[in-house]
Amino acid sequence: MPRYALKIEYDGEPFNGWQRQAGGQPTVQAAIEAALARLQPGPHAITAAGRTDAGVHATGQVAHCDLDRDWDGFRLAGAINAHLRPLPVAIAECRPVADDFHARFSAMERRYLFRLVTRRAPATHDRGLVWRVGHDLDAGAMRAGAAHLIGRHDFTTFRSAACQATSPVKTLDEISIETRDYPGGQEIRFALRARSFLHNQVRSIIGTLERVGAGAWPPDRVAGALAAADRAACGPVSPPQGLYLTGVGYPDDPFAG
Amino acid sequence: MPRYALKIEYDGEPFNGWQRQAGGQPTVQAAIEAALARLQPGPHAITAAGRTDAGVHATGQVAHCDLDRDWDGFRLAGAINAHLRPLPVAIAECRPVADDFHARFSAMERRYLFRLVTRRAPATHDRGLVWRVGHDLDAGAMRAGAAHLIGRHDFTTFRSAACQATSPVKTLDEISIETRDYPGGQEIRFALRARSFLHNQVRSIIGTLERVGAGAWPPDRVAGALAAADRAACGPVSPPQGLYLTGVGYPDDPFAG
Repeated sequence: MPRYALKIEYDGEPFNGWQRQAGGQPTVQAAIEAALARLQPGPHAITAAGRTDAGVHATGQVAHCDLDRDWDGFRLAGAINAHLRPLPVAIAECRPVADDFHARFSAMERRYLFRLVTRRAPATHDRGLVWRVGHDLDAGAMRAGAAHLIGRHDFTTFRSAACQATSPVKTLDEISIETRDYPGGQEIRFALRARSFLHNQVRSIIGTLERVGAGAWPPDRVAGALAAADRAACGPVSPPQGLYLTGVGYPDDPFAG
Repeated sequence: MPRYALKIEYDGEPFNGWQRQAGGQPTVQAAIEAALARLQPGPHAITAAGRTDAGVHATGQVAHCDLDRDWDGFRLAGAINAHLRPLPVAIAECRPVADDFHARFSAMERRYLFRLVTRRAPATHDRGLVWRVGHDLDAGAMRAGAAHLIGRHDFTTFRSAACQATSPVKTLDEISIETRDYPGGQEIRFALRARSFLHNQVRSIIGTLERVGAGAWPPDRVAGALAAADRAACGPVSPPQGLYLTGVGYPDDPFAG
């Protein structure tokens, strides 16, 4: 049965996250599976690299699906997109892959972007697409705080109590923090990269670094919170709106070339 | 009675345009007037530089209002914004102005941006914020077509049949066309500038230039359409979603300094 890799974009706002739910709530997975069912009858079960939470976006989610017949990737993407309308989900690319490609287990790297905007006025065009705070943030202090998190650590402090990962030890390869102009304030963009993340790890880190940027936490307190390996030592968890799954790395990139 | 100039941002999607309507439909003007009524009882009537249509956005709309008491501009913006929530409208800036400042009649220039995205997949995060077409467009051909429109002309071809302006003669000072990368395709940004515009003039121009970019119209046909001074000679009118009122020019910029 031919297997296909899908690169997927979505606006998380109208969805209860990625994963299909028993109660039939709208989820991204359920929307794509329903579109596939219009192409080929019968139940479909697609698997993604990362199960994003409600309100979290993607520009480079990757999933795989199995279909009975051979499709040209370009035409398959168009056919799925036609059945996804008018939902804010799009198959950006689709490629045939080997039977042993697995969107989740083959993945070697996940990349996330977090968009934080500082300005007095609420967000308008970026409503639901950024976390807006009304006060200035010190990007230098946030970089100093973030530096404590790079590398291999027990991230118990920075994971949800509901996290199902067997181990809290993860290696965080990158947190870079860039600033750019934004009307009436500033946008701060955090880029995070790791082989895999714990549940709520990015939002726990961003919410904590926001406290550092606001001056409420000295940067070194991040090191203490990490060393405590205690969920109670974490700062507030950020809202989901600013978070984007931007890419997934594989030994052989199915979308290369 | 102190007068204030407001610089206003909004997402046009949930509104039936700028102008207050007798039937009570949601409009941007009505939303701001209702917020002002929370600060000072009684009816309010604000006046804007441009009455944008349903679905059209603004990043730099300007309006003026009169209030009984003196306000610090910064605090007034915050107070109005607090009462606008959760609508996607924000007072970006607010300044006290002289009694003879009039947001519409004092304006010497209006600036618009139009965002057109070419890619196969539908828009996700920019849904409602861009006009997405599924085919490539030739920006060079569009620039050649647009060049015919610069200057003082009878723009009868490019105005709505419902336009109430007394004269169809306007001077178009600028149409610049820039391209930039966009996931899966290209974004084409049109910047237009004139003392004032006719009703639907920008969308009529953009829809016509799209036909030029697609190769359906040779660029010179734009000159012929303009010379015809006949609404029937216009190309299709673009949808409103890509259009933004980005700024208004005044002899004394109320927001300077």
